[in-house]
Amino acid sequence: MKIRTAIIGATGFTGSELARLITLHPSMTLEAITSESSKGVKFSAVHPHFFGLVDQKLISATEIDDSGLDLVFLALPHGVSMNYVKKWKDADFKIVDLSGDYRLADPETYEKWYQKEHIFKEAFSSFVYGLPEFFSEEIKSARMVANPGCYPTSAILGAYPIIKEGLVESDRLVIDSKSGATGAGIKAKSGTLYSQVNENFNAYAIGNHRHTIEIEQILGGKTKRSPTVQFTPHLLPTDRGILSTIYGGIKNGVKISNEELITIYKITYSGHPFVRIREEAPGIKEVRGTNYCDLYPTVDPRTGNIIVISTIDNLMKGAAGQAVHNANLMFGLKETEGLDLISLKP
Amino acid sequence: MKIRTAIIGATGFTGSELARLITLHPSMTLEAITSESSKGVKFSAVHPHFFGLVDQKLISATEIDDSGLDLVFLALPHGVSMNYVKKWKDADFKIVDLSGDYRLADPETYEKWYQKEHIFKEAFSSFVYGLPEFFSEEIKSARMVANPGCYPTSAILGAYPIIKEGLVESDRLVIDSKSGATGAGIKAKSGTLYSQVNENFNAYAIGNHRHTIEIEQILGGKTKRSPTVQFTPHLLPTDRGILSTIYGGIKNGVKISNEELITIYKITYSGHPFVRIREEAPGIKEVRGTNYCDLYPTVDPRTGNIIVISTIDNLMKGAAGQAVHNANLMFGLKETEGLDLISLKP
Amino acid sequence: MKIRTAIIGATGFTGSELARLITLHPSMTLEAITSESSKGVKFSAVHPHFFGLVDQKLISATEIDDSGLDLVFLALPHGVSMNYVKKWKDADFKIVDLSGDYRLADPETYEKWYQKEHIFKEAFSSFVYGLPEFFSEEIKSARMVANPGCYPTSAILGAYPIIKEGLVESDRLVIDSKSGATGAGIKAKSGTLYSQVNENFNAYAIGNHRHTIEIEQILGGKTKRSPTVQFTPHLLPTDRGILSTIYGGIKNGVKISNEELITIYKITYSGHPFVRIREEAPGIKEVRGTNYCDLYPTVDPRTGNIIVISTIDNLMKGAAGQAVHNANLMFGLKETEGLDLISLKP
Amino acid sequence: MKIRTAIIGATGFTGSELARLITLHPSMTLEAITSESSKGVKFSAVHPHFFGLVDQKLISATEIDDSGLDLVFLALPHGVSMNYVKKWKDADFKIVDLSGDYRLADPETYEKWYQKEHIFKEAFSSFVYGLPEFFSEEIKSARMVANPGCYPTSAILGAYPIIKEGLVESDRLVIDSKSGATGAGIKAKSGTLYSQVNENFNAYAIGNHRHTIEIEQILGGKTKRSPTVQFTPHLLPTDRGILSTIYGGIKNGVKISNEELITIYKITYSGHPFVRIREEAPGIKEVRGTNYCDLYPTVDPRTGNIIVISTIDNLMKGAAGQAVHNANLMFGLKETEGLDLISLKP
Repeated sequence: MKIRTAIIGATGFTGSELARLITLHPSMTLEAITSESSKGVKFSAVHPHFFGLVDQKLISATEIDDSGLDLVFLALPHGVSMNYVKKWKDADFKIVDLSGDYRLADPETYEKWYQKEHIFKEAFSSFVYGLPEFFSEEIKSARMVANPGCYPTSAILGAYPIIKEGLVESDRLVIDSKSGATGAGIKAKSGTLYSQVNENFNAYAIGNHRHTIEIEQILGGKTKRSPTVQFTPHLLPTDRGILSTIYGGIKNGVKISNEELITIYKITYSGHPFVRIREEAPGIKEVRGTNYCDLYPTVDPRTGNIIVISTIDNLMKGAAGQAVHNANLMFGLKETEGLDLISLKP
Repeated sequence: MKIRTAIIGATGFTGSELARLITLHPSMTLEAITSESSKGVKFSAVHPHFFGLVDQKLISATEIDDSGLDLVFLALPHGVSMNYVKKWKDADFKIVDLSGDYRLADPETYEKWYQKEHIFKEAFSSFVYGLPEFFSEEIKSARMVANPGCYPTSAILGAYPIIKEGLVESDRLVIDSKSGATGAGIKAKSGTLYSQVNENFNAYAIGNHRHTIEIEQILGGKTKRSPTVQFTPHLLPTDRGILSTIYGGIKNGVKISNEELITIYKITYSGHPFVRIREEAPGIKEVRGTNYCDLYPTVDPRTGNIIVISTIDNLMKGAAGQAVHNANLMFGLKETEGLDLISLKP
Repeated sequence: MKIRTAIIGATGFTGSELARLITLHPSMTLEAITSESSKGVKFSAVHPHFFGLVDQKLISATEIDDSGLDLVFLALPHGVSMNYVKKWKDADFKIVDLSGDYRLADPETYEKWYQKEHIFKEAFSSFVYGLPEFFSEEIKSARMVANPGCYPTSAILGAYPIIKEGLVESDRLVIDSKSGATGAGIKAKSGTLYSQVNENFNAYAIGNHRHTIEIEQILGGKTKRSPTVQFTPHLLPTDRGILSTIYGGIKNGVKISNEELITIYKITYSGHPFVRIREEAPGIKEVRGTNYCDLYPTVDPRTGNIIVISTIDNLMKGAAGQAVHNANLMFGLKETEGLDLISLKP
Repeated sequence: MKIRTAIIGATGFTGSELARLITLHPSMTLEAITSESSKGVKFSAVHPHFFGLVDQKLISATEIDDSGLDLVFLALPHGVSMNYVKKWKDADFKIVDLSGDYRLADPETYEKWYQKEHIFKEAFSSFVYGLPEFFSEEIKSARMVANPGCYPTSAILGAYPIIKEGLVESDRLVIDSKSGATGAGIKAKSGTLYSQVNENFNAYAIGNHRHTIEIEQILGGKTKRSPTVQFTPHLLPTDRGILSTIYGGIKNGVKISNEELITIYKITYSGHPFVRIREEAPGIKEVRGTNYCDLYPTVDPRTGNIIVISTIDNLMKGAAGQAVHNANLMFGLKETEGLDLISLKP
């Protein structure tokens, strides 16, 4: 008996990537794909690489047959997802929400960082943060999972071990992140025009990006410390990929060798199939199209810093891949089912 | 019982792509990977995206245990492959040769167009040209298959119906092709340096590219006509992808509508799972990472020409994907086994 | 005494490139830059690379002080330019119109190919087609110049000699052109999003692009023949550059060697400083940022075709550079003044 | 009377960029261009975008006529330059060395960080560090100038004001830098192949890049402090451009507003025509092809850090442009002569 899924909001990059993964997933079927702006149109007319593969018609979310579904993926912008969570608060199916609407600890923090009123605050307590490396038990029994942000996924997995172990001064962490252009979404904006992104590179949202608080809250909750993170996102001239370069100053009195550091990472992520502790600094192309997070931690004895490189594919481990990973856990499947992919490189 | 395969020459892009496909193939195992230049090194040290996935050591081809193999893929440059064909002429395993050494009709043509002496001419008669859309019966019973060139695959599939049906003047076909940079191989050359290819675009080998004769011979043999092809390859600033724009002048007296033309293409490729007749002009990104050849034929009544757009991924349908397709046929598997992939877009 | 110029419509790529050229031009000043959508804003706020260099405020075209100007560049979309031509039909300044509104022979052809009513047909007879290599005398005495389209510039300069000399069958010319993404303009459209263009390549407007008729009319008028052109534009994943690959079948009875062909091109463009007859096939990066058109003609004796490669920078020789070249001629300056640039490569 | 210059080693990107600048420079002539590997060949055969513009033959450095020169640019790899400095230690012309051979304080530091014996240590004391914003007086009277490294130029200009003013803890500076691929040179290497760099991004030389010590020594000498710098270079999939994101922790007790910080930067670089203090975070494309260093300093009161974005074109302000700037100073020309360029964007 396969898991019957639907994708709500399938015209974006995340929706398209979910469709790819679900179509190839041995234990899932794609019962419905919705789009309010393109309803009535074939999915493959919006995403032509699905021609002949996913030709079913996009429908309105109002036409969804609730009773026929086991799982719904909300691939919607923040501020929109919450309406569907409200609508389906008592539905029989499970929900993985890929937006930012339920990732933070409480509605107040949400409203402060997202500058938006939250219209369904009651659901915060029902959501589990869907980072399987840390919350797999909670995810297994959750009805609703808030899929992590792309930058936070790379930042949290990279920084967690050194904060948890008390190796670095957690109140002055620097996380310098670089993301491919799909992170900005599919909507036509002057800032993501080809000729604006190509041959270019720039920082944005310095000091005030919403993912900052997500990183701090999750790292803090999981390590029982209160990290302060200087997070700076940059826009890379690539389609996919996030690389975070994480800097922590080694605490006074702490002695740690490179080998010991690597061992800590290997132990922390032992048994987690999608985290690879690499022997050389990884490039984003080495995880492209996969659900891997590649980590490369290193000690600089000259400066007294630990530097960690963390890479993911923002549409996979940073969005759709992690959502399917969460779904696998929620339905008792093997973690890697449908996700045993190899990077498309070059 | 799985098919035991080996890849001979695995440091290039084609070898890496074969490793990806075989690793994910439900009915194949990868028993050995060879490299003379990197023997003793892990495969994943040469291609780091395989870290944790294909970590087996590269061996010399001389260390291969012949008896343990069902199938060998020769992923070698032309001029090198023939040595292995000679060495293994009586071996028990089957061979798919991805080089140009046995694609042409006879050694004389080879020596003229490749400017190289052929050292094992006897094998020409044993090879079948591995374009499954046209030669699937021969491939099924072949011991040795010459996998088609990348440009010829796109050109032949695109041009065949209009020549076969006698719609266009076959002695003045224009095939204007554009290929991503992986077509030039992995070897460091000044012409394929990043800063040479990026933001650039140029034609090369005008009038004398080796694939010209391959296109003419195969099209000629299959249609019983003698096409003359003006083939011009160009280098695109992308990793993958070939797009061929094919121009044929409609013969005097021939009347053909756009709908009729499309019907001819649909009939010709009916039952061939990897050819898609598209309703809009396809881009190379829509077949990236897949074994599809997307075709878009159109009539221009104003000029009296037929224009056909043909797109493939040069490393897939133009190399490794087609090789696995051939292998599936040679071993009686389902044609699409291990190849039911969806384009990684964006 | 410097030539006082204004740019009407300066928020696009062409307007920005004109501002670059005029600012650096020894004999021109930039008196005004207009934008209806961004009036009141600094030019450098719209195009930040001009920060500290061109900080003057954008004004509305209605605020222009006509009496203070010698020359106006209309850097507007087709359909908009004609309104300004009408408004300024009796103004004292000269006009270079970079749109397509007055490039064609007559309003009827315009309305057919542009699918748009022409609201100021009277001006057609006053405009000179601004291709300096062919119409320099007319340009010198013109009040109004229609700056050629980008594709037509590359196509006409490349194809003219072989048609003029009667070498090829002019009724079956194939012009396969590839352009960088700036050709599509600065407006945010889903088709020119970074992730749509990057790693992609596709043909568009097959058989019906508006530049087809411009190519045919100008080539026809200048050669006294009636060429029929199969023109296919493609979108390259680069910012700038057009490369046209031009195919002509050598007429029966004509004998021409490669050397003779090159000589014809050298003679035709002798004395024209912006056409370079190259000894090897040029890439688009070799003309980037310059006003050059690089040509590479070649004979293929095997097939009986002539192939000509023609490259330009679409924003320079295909737009702003050619406009300044025209302005130089209109005001009796040296042709190359302000345009003696060297390609920014890499 | 023009300044007669020569470029020693003109086959690389820096040599080509120097040729572009000198050719366009009103007060310089290019008397000789040398290459040991390509002597006898036209410069435009090596760099085809110079076709028709710089067609002079490359000669061996041994053929140089010393007496005819005023200035020699050494555009050579480190370890090679020193030989020419030795050879020409008593020559009549001045020297700008673009390699790393004489940038550091002493031969011992050089040998430690460059892992190479220095064969002409005597010249260290004769060299002036050619960063005009800090050493213009020394440069004006120097015979030999060591042109700064590309990363150090962006890092030093960005970090200097906050260290000089004692705003941040200088012993824990983080400089996260990203450079386009031309920084790796023109030599064919597998790491700079198109398909390796394209769609990729990675860190390298973490904790041990040679530019680290150059940054520390120059910053230290100029500010009379002893900064410790955690410098991490990354490889961007672009041709040109460096963006450094600089992080400093505000010292205990220091109070600084964003406006005050910007004022400090404006005062520090007042009168320096190539440093622009930007009002928004700059992208590398906004300085492409120019000699500008664009700086964007900002305070994050939440975290207590100062973040400075610093962008340059690595081949211009990071190499050839700065070399010409130095030459202008050495010969009493206007600082901006030949360098009043506007970015080629897009």
